[in-house]
Amino acid sequence: MGDSARVPVGIVGASGYGGVQLVRLLLDHPGVEIVYLGGESSAGKPFSDIYPHLVNQTKLLVEAIDLDDIGDRCEAVFLSLPNGLACDMAPTLLKKGCKVLDLSADYRFENLATYESWYGKTRSDREVAETAVYGLPELYRSRIAEAQLIGCPGCYPTASLLALSPLLKQGLILSESAIIDAKSGASGGGRQAKTNLLLAEADQSLGAYNVARHRHTPEIEQVCSDLAGHEVQVQFTPHMIPMVRGILATVYANLRDPGLVRDDLLTIYQAFYRNSPWVKLLPSGTFPQTKWACGTNNCYIGIEVDPRTDRVIVISAIDNLLKGQAGQAVQCLNIMMGWDETLGLPKMGFYP
Amino acid sequence: MGDSARVPVGIVGASGYGGVQLVRLLLDHPGVEIVYLGGESSAGKPFSDIYPHLVNQTKLLVEAIDLDDIGDRCEAVFLSLPNGLACDMAPTLLKKGCKVLDLSADYRFENLATYESWYGKTRSDREVAETAVYGLPELYRSRIAEAQLIGCPGCYPTASLLALSPLLKQGLILSESAIIDAKSGASGGGRQAKTNLLLAEADQSLGAYNVARHRHTPEIEQVCSDLAGHEVQVQFTPHMIPMVRGILATVYANLRDPGLVRDDLLTIYQAFYRNSPWVKLLPSGTFPQTKWACGTNNCYIGIEVDPRTDRVIVISAIDNLLKGQAGQAVQCLNIMMGWDETLGLPKMGFYP
Amino acid sequence: MGDSARVPVGIVGASGYGGVQLVRLLLDHPGVEIVYLGGESSAGKPFSDIYPHLVNQTKLLVEAIDLDDIGDRCEAVFLSLPNGLACDMAPTLLKKGCKVLDLSADYRFENLATYESWYGKTRSDREVAETAVYGLPELYRSRIAEAQLIGCPGCYPTASLLALSPLLKQGLILSESAIIDAKSGASGGGRQAKTNLLLAEADQSLGAYNVARHRHTPEIEQVCSDLAGHEVQVQFTPHMIPMVRGILATVYANLRDPGLVRDDLLTIYQAFYRNSPWVKLLPSGTFPQTKWACGTNNCYIGIEVDPRTDRVIVISAIDNLLKGQAGQAVQCLNIMMGWDETLGLPKMGFYP
Amino acid sequence: MGDSARVPVGIVGASGYGGVQLVRLLLDHPGVEIVYLGGESSAGKPFSDIYPHLVNQTKLLVEAIDLDDIGDRCEAVFLSLPNGLACDMAPTLLKKGCKVLDLSADYRFENLATYESWYGKTRSDREVAETAVYGLPELYRSRIAEAQLIGCPGCYPTASLLALSPLLKQGLILSESAIIDAKSGASGGGRQAKTNLLLAEADQSLGAYNVARHRHTPEIEQVCSDLAGHEVQVQFTPHMIPMVRGILATVYANLRDPGLVRDDLLTIYQAFYRNSPWVKLLPSGTFPQTKWACGTNNCYIGIEVDPRTDRVIVISAIDNLLKGQAGQAVQCLNIMMGWDETLGLPKMGFYP
Repeated sequence: MGDSARVPVGIVGASGYGGVQLVRLLLDHPGVEIVYLGGESSAGKPFSDIYPHLVNQTKLLVEAIDLDDIGDRCEAVFLSLPNGLACDMAPTLLKKGCKVLDLSADYRFENLATYESWYGKTRSDREVAETAVYGLPELYRSRIAEAQLIGCPGCYPTASLLALSPLLKQGLILSESAIIDAKSGASGGGRQAKTNLLLAEADQSLGAYNVARHRHTPEIEQVCSDLAGHEVQVQFTPHMIPMVRGILATVYANLRDPGLVRDDLLTIYQAFYRNSPWVKLLPSGTFPQTKWACGTNNCYIGIEVDPRTDRVIVISAIDNLLKGQAGQAVQCLNIMMGWDETLGLPKMGFYP
Repeated sequence: MGDSARVPVGIVGASGYGGVQLVRLLLDHPGVEIVYLGGESSAGKPFSDIYPHLVNQTKLLVEAIDLDDIGDRCEAVFLSLPNGLACDMAPTLLKKGCKVLDLSADYRFENLATYESWYGKTRSDREVAETAVYGLPELYRSRIAEAQLIGCPGCYPTASLLALSPLLKQGLILSESAIIDAKSGASGGGRQAKTNLLLAEADQSLGAYNVARHRHTPEIEQVCSDLAGHEVQVQFTPHMIPMVRGILATVYANLRDPGLVRDDLLTIYQAFYRNSPWVKLLPSGTFPQTKWACGTNNCYIGIEVDPRTDRVIVISAIDNLLKGQAGQAVQCLNIMMGWDETLGLPKMGFYP
Repeated sequence: MGDSARVPVGIVGASGYGGVQLVRLLLDHPGVEIVYLGGESSAGKPFSDIYPHLVNQTKLLVEAIDLDDIGDRCEAVFLSLPNGLACDMAPTLLKKGCKVLDLSADYRFENLATYESWYGKTRSDREVAETAVYGLPELYRSRIAEAQLIGCPGCYPTASLLALSPLLKQGLILSESAIIDAKSGASGGGRQAKTNLLLAEADQSLGAYNVARHRHTPEIEQVCSDLAGHEVQVQFTPHMIPMVRGILATVYANLRDPGLVRDDLLTIYQAFYRNSPWVKLLPSGTFPQTKWACGTNNCYIGIEVDPRTDRVIVISAIDNLLKGQAGQAVQCLNIMMGWDETLGLPKMGFYP
Repeated sequence: MGDSARVPVGIVGASGYGGVQLVRLLLDHPGVEIVYLGGESSAGKPFSDIYPHLVNQTKLLVEAIDLDDIGDRCEAVFLSLPNGLACDMAPTLLKKGCKVLDLSADYRFENLATYESWYGKTRSDREVAETAVYGLPELYRSRIAEAQLIGCPGCYPTASLLALSPLLKQGLILSESAIIDAKSGASGGGRQAKTNLLLAEADQSLGAYNVARHRHTPEIEQVCSDLAGHEVQVQFTPHMIPMVRGILATVYANLRDPGLVRDDLLTIYQAFYRNSPWVKLLPSGTFPQTKWACGTNNCYIGIEVDPRTDRVIVISAIDNLLKGQAGQAVQCLNIMMGWDETLGLPKMGFYP
């Protein structure tokens, strides 16, 4: 039972939405074999008790979290846990020789003080954290290839940064003018039973939250500053949308050179993402629907320039649980293993 | 502050969905004034802290539950609490002279043993319970008019019984053939944070639950048996639908007399509901959409006879939180007070 | 049949969503009586054939459109038609002495050349058009009171302008920095059968449309310029949201004076809307959900200042078919008739 | 360009929902190559103009429908057209040696008179029609393997028959007692712009349609009669549910032998579907959610016996566009070609 040519992988935190995406993706992935699923509250249960649609499709049990044991059995480990837990596990797993892909915020920050102030947890793993690479392959592919520890960005930063990066990298915009108006489906809130995420509350409604104070702001700004070569501040406003999956980021910025037209920018984006198979630039005049990305690892991008206002408007759409979470982590693993970065990841969803 | 001609009423359990409907209805009702809102967990808070859309529309505070105090201040009290709590409160309130309208299951059963076995609570208020009247005005209008204590039926029994009653009362069907396939929006599950009620889980999905064992079955059977004059068993299957409000009951039964046609039944239903302003019988060939009932106290009913199978199919639609809950209770209060039973209740919703 | 104290009103274009809202509102309005419903394609049908939920609630028939006849029978006429038709009807109705409330774009523009270039229709009713008043009562209440012809703004301009007006009127922002990221439910697209409005297409998806070229842009800019006292350009991006009703406008602008804090702005907004009963300013730190406004004529507004970026973010929510369409028209009628502007309009919706 | 080992296939009617599912499935299928896409209204366009999410994923153009040309290029042809068109095309394609898989109703009836009376089209292809096999592999696998022409059943019959078949085949129920209460997502209505399928109309609502007269009734009865060995009549009631994809069939029937319990039936179903990899029988007490099936070719079935009423209740869930349409057709092709019937079909969806 088990294919010796496949890389043995484990998932800690398998029962949440990130976990079930990883299970789904990795069961289909030709390069790996899931040898371990971990969770505290559901330890001992068959995974298909938690997700009955997988009845007859996997016999995996959820096991308790024993880091030494995980390290012995797995070559790569995905940590899909609430913020603040991975940083207590990754050092041990790395010492055991595992590659570690963390889906939480713990390893996304170059400056741990920023993390500590926004996430309210003191960190004692500075040396380990310094080895972490930000897991957005479209920007940091070569560093990911050589890393042992990846801090995979979540849905909002992924959609925002893929829309903004070419503009900042090429110095095309007044960086202080960048505004990200982001909209997410309710699965972004996770599988926790919260009143505001109930269908009865959230359906047929729409609102902004954490206006001017969302925790993804400093993370987005860190990468923007890295790209621009100077400190960048952005305006980031998240909204919850009455749908299950999907994120749309509508990004506004003032062009430095008002002579640029839409097709110029399209050319620049095409060049920037030439080697990025998951970024799909849309034809002139077409803007993405989030549904196009659902069930895939794609990021669709549409671009407009408004000659009246000298602004560029870039709109990106991803599946928040795939390119915005589990798919991105698998893409990073592919790169770390030297595989094609599309290996085992879904390219086409079902429409409608 | 307060209109001396208005009846002072209180609501215990104001923070749930039943509570907020009652507040909404009673603030607009010309015959009453809300003088008390009660709740345990939110005692001390302005009601508009819990429901911010009511900012500037009510200054009522949620207060702790002190039965003597409530009894002193209120002429009628609505109890909108989880099952098993009202039966500990109603006796005191009745002794203080209040009319009591209970929205839970506690006072819906003639035979308390049935209640005890399905709801797992031992009852010590038998004498009080015997005075309770089942609060479905279309069937028990005159008894409600003289009662002090009403056990208001919930959404599934209301939709089911309004569809079935004329058939049973007139002996038109083989009673053992009755099947109720019922479909409810997610607000029927209340404002509790449960995983299966999350938008991410419940949206874009549909399933049955409590198949062959839902607690509303004995309640529906009690009233059916009363109407038929002999013991009746029904098949009742609830389904959760990915929408906020609304219930549809699709009722099947075999006709005793296969010579009956659709228009005969329409005539019988029209006669049966002649004095029931909230029942809207649809023209021949038209079947209700739940949305038609939303935001109103109406029950829409469409009828078909299938001459191939000798079955009658009756389809009823209500707003589960109004005619299926709070609206029904207000309708009962209107009758208890000798008012027109439509007073202060919404007749037309907004479409779409 | 008919109440002589009530004002006789007519609705041309009764079968669309604007029409059915007007019927619903005006049937409940104590000051008016609907004496005429007009439509081409459904002329001769009972209105409740088109909207069966109104069975037994109105016996009105849809009639053909005969302007002389309408003018004879009605004191006020609502025109709820596609753009470009009202301008051929209003002159005749005005000559007959009617007050005319147009829900289309035809009478919203001071400069008809702007209308002609964006809507592609040549206008021959310049003198009449010059008498029209823009029907946003919160800004033009006194002019509306004296007008005979109102061009009622639709959903996007209403939500956008109520959020922006105090900032522009008081000169608080750099006007060229204003960005409106607007999100609308699908009913904003009307009751026309278009593929992109199908549930199968639009549900579970989200996208922008008419980026940098939506026809509401010049209309918003006209009013903004009027308020600011100089020409203002705004960035306006509409998005379609998978829900039936509701609009949210997220408005960004750079403050002229970076010393202003949230509570300063809240005070300024409260003063600005002191006499506007339909604008509900939310407490500091609270942001609106569109569902709060649904089924009401309210506009909820939440305000934030981001001291990091010196931007103000104002978020407004309305029901696109009431305050964004039919409710607004009724509010205008109330003002034209000298009635309280809240007369007959819904203040509280049903939640959830 | 083209893999010579792959079977060349064509799709006539590629622009509808059935067509886009087939394109999606067949692009991923290791045994075939799509060499032809046909459509009238969109002939000449790149397929990704109609479905922009496929940009960069296929360069296929939609072509005009020329049967000789299709027959020359394709070894198998899928017809995904409105009812009444396939029967004018299949004879020619068969003569050219193609295998033909029709997704419409044209080739589902053994008795063409039944087709003619329910579908209102006179048929002149009786000899061809007699060679057609009903494409439900779980019942007719071996006949499908030898056929050249398949009439693939749609979503309602598939869900209904997979739930009912073991009961009828084993004679376990009183066949005249069978009632199918079926619920479908809105994509079942296809990609035609109809008012009742608009999001604004269909969302947040639920209703039955074609009560006692839906065209799938005779088709279901034909197969039921075949299984039972005598003529069977069923009650079939379809409902539209506010979601995109998925069908749930709740099936009721009276047991002949009231001594049977749930686990007996589960054993019988397991035996019946022993060789059917796409049927997933759920553990005792578990009932399917439609979402579990979405994006897969699975049919989930849950079973209950109510000892109070001696009824069996079987609940089945499928994706209406896959196992209920395009997936089924591909499953049939796999069988016709002698391939594993799971080849190239999705086994696991993404949850939630």
